[in-house]
Formats: sequence, structure tokens, C-alpha cells
Amino acid sequence: MTTETNSWGRWGADDERGALNKLTEENVMSAVRAIATGRSYQLAIPIQHAGTPVLDYRGAPHRLTLSSCHDPEMFSGYGAPAGTGANEDILMIACHNGTHMDSLSHVFADDKIYNGFAAETFKPNSGASRAGIEKCGPVIGRAVFLDIAELHGVSSLAADVVITADDIIAAERRQEVEIRPGDIVLLRTGWMEAYFEATSRGETLPFEQPGIGKSASKLLVERDVAVVGSDNWAVESIPSDGGFLEAHIELQVRHGIPFIEGLTLGELSRDKAGYGFFVASPLPITGASGSPVNPVFIA
Amino acid sequence: MTTETNSWGRWGADDERGALNKLTEENVMSAVRAIATGRSYQLAIPIQHAGTPVLDYRGAPHRLTLSSCHDPEMFSGYGAPAGTGANEDILMIACHNGTHMDSLSHVFADDKIYNGFAAETFKPNSGASRAGIEKCGPVIGRAVFLDIAELHGVSSLAADVVITADDIIAAERRQEVEIRPGDIVLLRTGWMEAYFEATSRGETLPFEQPGIGKSASKLLVERDVAVVGSDNWAVESIPSDGGFLEAHIELQVRHGIPFIEGLTLGELSRDKAGYGFFVASPLPITGASGSPVNPVFIA
Amino acid sequence: MTTETNSWGRWGADDERGALNKLTEENVMSAVRAIATGRSYQLAIPIQHAGTPVLDYRGAPHRLTLSSCHDPEMFSGYGAPAGTGANEDILMIACHNGTHMDSLSHVFADDKIYNGFAAETFKPNSGASRAGIEKCGPVIGRAVFLDIAELHGVSSLAADVVITADDIIAAERRQEVEIRPGDIVLLRTGWMEAYFEATSRGETLPFEQPGIGKSASKLLVERDVAVVGSDNWAVESIPSDGGFLEAHIELQVRHGIPFIEGLTLGELSRDKAGYGFFVASPLPITGASGSPVNPVFIA
Amino acid sequence: MTTETNSWGRWGADDERGALNKLTEENVMSAVRAIATGRSYQLAIPIQHAGTPVLDYRGAPHRLTLSSCHDPEMFSGYGAPAGTGANEDILMIACHNGTHMDSLSHVFADDKIYNGFAAETFKPNSGASRAGIEKCGPVIGRAVFLDIAELHGVSSLAADVVITADDIIAAERRQEVEIRPGDIVLLRTGWMEAYFEATSRGETLPFEQPGIGKSASKLLVERDVAVVGSDNWAVESIPSDGGFLEAHIELQVRHGIPFIEGLTLGELSRDKAGYGFFVASPLPITGASGSPVNPVFIA
Repeated sequence: MTTETNSWGRWGADDERGALNKLTEENVMSAVRAIATGRSYQLAIPIQHAGTPVLDYRGAPHRLTLSSCHDPEMFSGYGAPAGTGANEDILMIACHNGTHMDSLSHVFADDKIYNGFAAETFKPNSGASRAGIEKCGPVIGRAVFLDIAELHGVSSLAADVVITADDIIAAERRQEVEIRPGDIVLLRTGWMEAYFEATSRGETLPFEQPGIGKSASKLLVERDVAVVGSDNWAVESIPSDGGFLEAHIELQVRHGIPFIEGLTLGELSRDKAGYGFFVASPLPITGASGSPVNPVFIA
Repeated sequence: MTTETNSWGRWGADDERGALNKLTEENVMSAVRAIATGRSYQLAIPIQHAGTPVLDYRGAPHRLTLSSCHDPEMFSGYGAPAGTGANEDILMIACHNGTHMDSLSHVFADDKIYNGFAAETFKPNSGASRAGIEKCGPVIGRAVFLDIAELHGVSSLAADVVITADDIIAAERRQEVEIRPGDIVLLRTGWMEAYFEATSRGETLPFEQPGIGKSASKLLVERDVAVVGSDNWAVESIPSDGGFLEAHIELQVRHGIPFIEGLTLGELSRDKAGYGFFVASPLPITGASGSPVNPVFIA
Repeated sequence: MTTETNSWGRWGADDERGALNKLTEENVMSAVRAIATGRSYQLAIPIQHAGTPVLDYRGAPHRLTLSSCHDPEMFSGYGAPAGTGANEDILMIACHNGTHMDSLSHVFADDKIYNGFAAETFKPNSGASRAGIEKCGPVIGRAVFLDIAELHGVSSLAADVVITADDIIAAERRQEVEIRPGDIVLLRTGWMEAYFEATSRGETLPFEQPGIGKSASKLLVERDVAVVGSDNWAVESIPSDGGFLEAHIELQVRHGIPFIEGLTLGELSRDKAGYGFFVASPLPITGASGSPVNPVFIA
Repeated sequence: MTTETNSWGRWGADDERGALNKLTEENVMSAVRAIATGRSYQLAIPIQHAGTPVLDYRGAPHRLTLSSCHDPEMFSGYGAPAGTGANEDILMIACHNGTHMDSLSHVFADDKIYNGFAAETFKPNSGASRAGIEKCGPVIGRAVFLDIAELHGVSSLAADVVITADDIIAAERRQEVEIRPGDIVLLRTGWMEAYFEATSRGETLPFEQPGIGKSASKLLVERDVAVVGSDNWAVESIPSDGGFLEAHIELQVRHGIPFIEGLTLGELSRDKAGYGFFVASPLPITGASGSPVNPVFIA
């Protein structure tokens, strides 16, 4: 990794937020101008035990009932009259399944995370002492939606398609938008819709997935983006066209650019979206390396 | 409950979103005008095992490590070189602890939730078939921040203070703001800051808490608000100045107005905030009666 | 169900232990005589996230690290010197996956569990107020191991084999053992070994499984056994040769005979076991309808 | 630690079971002779969310409902008639709260666990590769119950009492029993009963607890016991009369003698028990450093 450029130190030796520092108040004011109609889109897939993409070792989430109307005695101790009470839940969830945001403590290479912090600053008990998700704060800025599947004239990219820098440039031209520094780039592969379609037919998709490769990663760094999101497991293609987690390492570790993964972008495609005002607000889970999010795109 | 007015049927017999229907595209476009500086505030408290307010029967959340750099073997199967891999977490959390949003399946009275759906539409295994949190969608609109503690000239209201309609009207005047239909009203009691201060001194606060009472609830219904949030456990005072969960029943059950509870509003107070653009995007947990959120207020 | 015989009331109208009442002190003293060599066998399969049989809606168990040597700071607050501390775990487990014991609150038919208690005595929040696993106490008695797979001359019964009363009688004769009242009957289908063999080859087994059917259930009731265990998911065949959960209803609901499911009985087969001293001690989880166990058979 | 004697290598350089190797078939046959009446005692406290001793950082266990009669639709997909189905649970539990057994991967000192294995053989993701609880197998042998509280003429030892070697010898004499090599020693402090009594009065006990100290630890090593259990949090006194986790280090790390902690021994005291046949069968949780157990003592 030593011969690669990186952004370590760009926001100070103690910085834990990386490219999120680009999301300044001025950037927010500028992003507001992307709002044209007030129509909003939520970009998260459902959180439920069955029917969503899950890596086996993580396990599917569980919503479990903590209290409900079926157990009226529990409220009587509080003086509740019959028929009155509250339904409540407990959620168990792997933070990197489903629609989620990676913090900059998520991926490490050469035993280091972003900004050169030791990978071991992530402790099993207490989690990330550096670059935990609680350090990120909300992601607020201008989103540029690029429909790579549409660019290729397909409903979803084939499993072995690696999105290139040329794809991104061509998508910008086709949609007449332009990625500027500090933008949040949303790349649609169509994989998530393909997943749900396959599931509804009782079929499964292969582990391999379309996503960005090496040239696209380099371009996104050059364009100085703040965040990259996509509608697949890893933003990057599986397998990578480089080494293991190549794009994670290039963007997250070297340049502090977080990913939002597992998005659903079909509605943006149907409405031919381009620019939008974007808000994703990760839960401030102390020491976590990621958080489930339900991002909002306002057109 | 039969003699009370309610909003059942106002948005159709099948509606599960209640006052969130007020958050139209026009409302969003109007709310955007509340953005003056681009400065943003996140309103959630930390999610961690110790040091945050937790009801005993719910238990404190746990972030647990699923994978980390301390277990390098797990990545070698994927072809990862030494020193490269990913830190990951599992989160266990009661959905109604900490900063969260109630769905309209949360509270029931006379065996009914909002819009007259039977409380039993919430099933222990599958959760809410009616008015689950996944039906809400993101909360996007104009927030009106009212600093009731400041109005009373205190850093935090005493445990036995019940916020009245007159308090709300006086706060509007003092801060020169006005609640309009479809607004998101954020009421600061100062309780959350008092909680963290007490904890830092090794002390605890009593279970009793300041919050809204009957007259304030009625006023908020009259003003036709979309959502009410506060920096305490229940938005309403504990105990209620009426029956058990009186304000929940008046606002959520009768009028479909969801609550966002457990906010931290100290920074808004310090910056003397008034209007803001507000986004809270609950996780779409199928069948859940609530979700943790990290709401954003953009001034 | 009304025309069937049952054992309701046999141990009193308030009894919650059913056939476990047969496990008297005298019965224990008699069972001790089954110990010939002191060789012991543990009958549970591993509890781990991958590689064991799991019903999808339950999810696989998770062992997660709560504290470890990789996080030395956590112990320094207790005055621990460097290099000293404790590794600790959290376990999340569905009580009816893997090797477990059903309590008599597990299965209901005609809205009733064993002894005629209403199925609704199981509440979502507090669990079983009647016949919870904490009412069972340890299962201590004489086990009779019957190797039905060996009887059929196969390593494991085919998926569509239903074990009959004649099978049980033939196995008793072949192995020269006899089921007496109060015995714990362990029936080997070979399914569990077939499962692990298939898994090791990267294959899966069908959902359908061998197990007891209607005539075997009737015989086990007539023989007045205390507990029935088997090396499959449900003791009974899947699908049942009668109605849904037919054997559960006949044995557990009507006659209070609990099941221990998901055993591994291959070692007992290899050692041609017959009688044994048996101990299975469910965790006293207040209100649970089952518990993981690691039963012991002492030959 | 280098100047202390230890049992490393006694059962081979690869041994992960330590003193459990003393529990031979001969030992079991001998232990059977301790059975006089067939009366059995279960020694675990309830597993429930409230009312049991819990270390804050571990959190209390949760039993949550996975399926129940209150959600009949879930079974209809399986062809279940109305009124028929199953109640099921999920359990979340810290393995070292409540009544549990430590594996020899639990405590480390000088960066080593029992037998000199590196503490780092416990990995956050996969847990213990050495001396995990799944390596223990069931604990079957002769128990010697020593009632130290009775010896001192109190219902429970005061918080600052450290049990000494002389206490153990005096208790043997008073109860006319003798600890032999390979025995399982159960020491009653009365703390657990005091805990539940205090809780029933709405009071709490101090963190400090009675338990064994240095001289008792040395004696138990000399007597060559297999396992030590007690009715408190840590078997040893809190604080230790030596260094941090002194008795854990002496017995578990140096000599491979596991602990069973959090027992309830009041019934054994009331019945003036002495010798018993003992079975504790930890769940074979792959890689765990401990497991909840419900031990059985048969008099």
C-alpha cells in the first residue's frame, strides 16, 4: 500500500471522519438547491428475518416482541386500565447486513484503518476507539444518482460486470449530471431488484455481484466525492477486479470515503432521478464499525 | 374513549400513517425554506451498554463484535492477505429505549390502535400487520423547536412539571415562532441533559419526569401537527396528569400523531434554534412498533 | 381431540410436569442399576453458527464475545495487572433448535396444552405461566436406547420412513431390552449422522425426516414412558402420518410426555448400548417453552 | 507466576480439559455409591430478566417469544388446523451470569490460559480454539457439599469473610466427610440465599462477597479436586485476599480446575447433605469460555 496516494492527514492527524469533512454547511446550502419537487424516496430494504440478502456468517435480523396486547398483565402494574398498553420490540441485527453505512473503522489493510490508525484500535469488547460510526454524524449533502444498469440497457447488470471509470463518465453524460467534490454518488447496478425478483420466484442469485472496480474507484477518488452508495452488498464487484476488498481499501482506508451498501434504487431509476438532497443518519452506536440506515433522497 | 374526537378515517379507513400524511411534497418544499445556514444537528443520544437512560424491563443495548482484526483467520478463507479484513458488529437493542420513533402500532387503548385497528393486529411472532414502523416512511418536514426549560428560566424542568398549552403558546411568543399544521414540534424539557449530568456525578434521576400533559396534548391536536418529539422518555410527563399514557392515547391512538422520544436538544437550546428542516428516517423493520432513529435538524 | 384418551388430571388438576412425575426417587434408585461401566456419552450436537440443522425462521445461534484478552483495557479498571483478565461470551439461541427439551407448554391443540391449560397461558412477554421449562426440573431416570436404523440394517432411515409400534417391539427383542413404565426412550433414526455427513460433502438433506408415527406414539403411551428422545428435529416423522404435529399432540399434549429432540446417538449405536442412567437438565428459563440441553447417558 | 507450581503438561501438552481428566469411568463407578436415596436437587437459579444477580456490563438475560398461540397464522402455512401450533422462545444470555461453568479458556494470566496456551487462542469471532467449553464434556462425579455458612453458625457469611483452608478442614470434620482426589467440591457461603432475601425486601447486596481465598485455593489444589462450585459470583471472595482473580488463576489457570459459579445450595443445607452424585452438563457451544448449566446433585 505504500506506493499508493492517500488522504491520511488531509483533515488532521486525529481525524476520524475522512471525506465526511467535505459535508460543510456551505455544501449543505448548495445541496438544498437540488430539491425541485419535494418528492422523497427512502432507499433502505426491509429489515426482516426472511427474504432479504444476508451473508450466512452474519445471520438474518430478528424482530422479537418485548411486550404486546397479548400480555395485558404486564401493564396492570403501572395502573393501566384493561385494553390499554404498549407493543414493543427488540431488534437483533448484524450492522453490515441490509442497508447500512460503513464507518471508517470497518475495513483495514496492512493492519491499518483510515488515517493510519492501527486496526487494533478496534477492540472486541469496546469496539472502535477510532473512527467508530458514532464519529460520523449524519450524512447530508447532494446526491448524484447514476443509473449504470440503464446505461447498459439492462434491468440489472450481470453478475460478472465490473463498473469502470468510463461507465461513470458515460452515465454522467447520458443523464446530464456531473459529480462535483463533496457529492454523494449513488450507483445503480439493478442487483437489489434482481435479488427480490429472484426470491419472489423461489430462486437465488449467485454470490458474485456487479459493482465498481479499480478504475471506477480511482475516478471517484479524483472526483473527490464524500460518500459512495450502491444497491449491492459491497459497492464493489464480487469478486474484485483487484485484490480482496480492493475498492474498500482504495476508497475507505486510503481516502476516508465511506460506503452505503445494500440500497434499493429502483424508484430513482423509474423516476429518472439525477441530483437530489440526501440524508443518511447512522445510529450513534458507540464503537460500532457500521450502522443500519434508511437513507432519504429528496428530488 | 367513545366521547372523544378522533382522526380515524381522516385519511381513509385503511390508513396506517396518520398525521404523517400531512408531510406532503408541498410541505417539504415549504420546510426547505427553514434552512438558513446549513448547520445541522443530530438529535440522538449514544447507543451503548452503560450510561444512557434505560427502562429495566427492556435492558440496555449491546454492541457485540462479529468479526475483527483480532481474528485474522476468518478472512484468509476469502483470500485476504495478512493484515487485511473487516471489523463488524451485531446490535441488540430494545426499539423503545434511547432515541426512537413510535409507530402507530405502539400504544393501544380500549383494545384499539390508531384508526380503530384492533390491538391484536400486533402479533407476537410477526409483529404489527397494521401501522408497523415500516409503513411510516421518513419524517421530513419543518421542525419548530420550543425551549420550555428556557421559558421557565431553568436548565431543566423539575420532575413534577407538566407542560401545559399555555407553556407552548408562551414559548412560541418568546421565540417568535408559530406552529403550523403539518409541523414537527420539538419540546425541550432539559431532562436529557439533567440525566447525563446526574450520571456524570454518579447520581440518578427519579423515574418521574417532566413532559406534556392534557392541555398541551389538546393544543397540539388543534394545531394539527405531524409529529411531536421531546428530550425525555415518553414526551408526556411521568406520571401523566390524566390516565395511564394519556398523551400517547390522545395524540397517537386518537389522532395518529407519532412521537419521537429520547431526543437530546441541548445544542438547539444553546444556538437558540427556532425553525429547522427536519429528517428522521426510521429503519423499515417489518412489523415493528418503533425504531431507533438519529434525527437531523438543519438550521 | 375429545374422543381420545388423555392423562389430564392424572397428577392433579394443577400439575405442570406430566410424565416427569414418574421420575420418583425410587425410579432413580432403580435407574442407577443400569450403570455397568461408568462410561458416559454426551448426546448434544455442537451449538455454533454454521453447520448444524436449523429451521430458517428460528435462525442459527450466535456465540459473541463480550470480553477478551484482545481488549485488555477493560480489566485494568478492576486492578488487573497486564496480561490478566477474562474471556466471556454472549449466547443468542432459539430454544427449539439443536439439542433441546420441549416443556409441556410447547405444543397446543384445540387451544390447549397438557392438562387442559389454555394455550393462552403462554404470554408473549412473560412466556409460559403454566408448564414452562422451569417447572420440569432435571430429567433423571433409566434410558432405553433403541437403534431403529440398525434394526432396518441401514446407517440412517430414509426420509420417508415412519417408525411404527412394530419397529419398537422388534428393536426391544433384537437388543434384548424392555421399556418399563417411567423409562426414557431414545430412538435412533440415524438422521443426525446423515445430516453431518451430507454437510461435510457440501450437500443438504430434504426437509422430510424419518421419525415416529401414530402407532409408535400409541405404544409409547401404553408403555407409560416418561420422556421420548430422538436424533431428528421433531421425534416424529416429517410429515406426520397423521395430522400436523400428531405425535407431539398425542404424547405431549394428551399425555404430558416431553420430547428431547436433536440428539446425536451415533456413539450409543457404535457401542451397542441398551440401558443407561440418563440425566438431562434443562436450564430453568422462567416461562420458556423449551431449553437447550446436553443430555448424559451413563452405561 | 513462574515460581508457582502448576499442572501444565500433567495430562499432555495438548490437553484442554485439565482436572476434568480425573473424572474417569472408575471415578464415576465410585461416585455412584454416593447415591443413597435417589433424591435429586437442581442447583441453578432461575434465568429471567429481573431479580437475579447480574454484572452490569453483561446485562440480564432475555427470553423472547419467537412463536406463540397468539399468532395463529404462522402455523397455517404448515397445514395446522385452527387452535394447533407451538410456542417457541429465543434466549439471549451472557454465559457467565447466573449459574454457569467456566471453561479453562475463561481466565488468563501472564497472557496464558491453562496448560500454557496463549490467551490469544481465544479469538473474538471464533472464540476459544483451545479449552473451549465444548471440550469439557459433562462433569460427572462425586460431590462433597461443605456448608461453610453453617460452620460459622450464620445463614450467610458476611461480605468480607474469606473462606480459608482451616474452614474447609473444619467443615469436613463437622459434616464427617472427606475430600478425595477427583471430587467435586461445593462450598456454601449462603450468599445466594441472602441475595434473594434482600431482593424480596427491595434491598440490594454490596458488590463485595464472601468466597475462598489463598489458603483455601492451595488446599483444594493439594486435595487434587476436579471441580469447585459455590453459591456466589466468583467462587473466590470479592475482593480477593491476593491479587486480581487470585483463586481463578491458582485453580483454573495453573491447575486446570474449573469453577461452577452462581449455584444455589440452600436445599442441600436444609437437608444436611454431604456426599452426592453430581452431573453438570455444559452446552457444547463451540468456542465459548463458559456455559449456563443446571447442575444436579443426587443424594
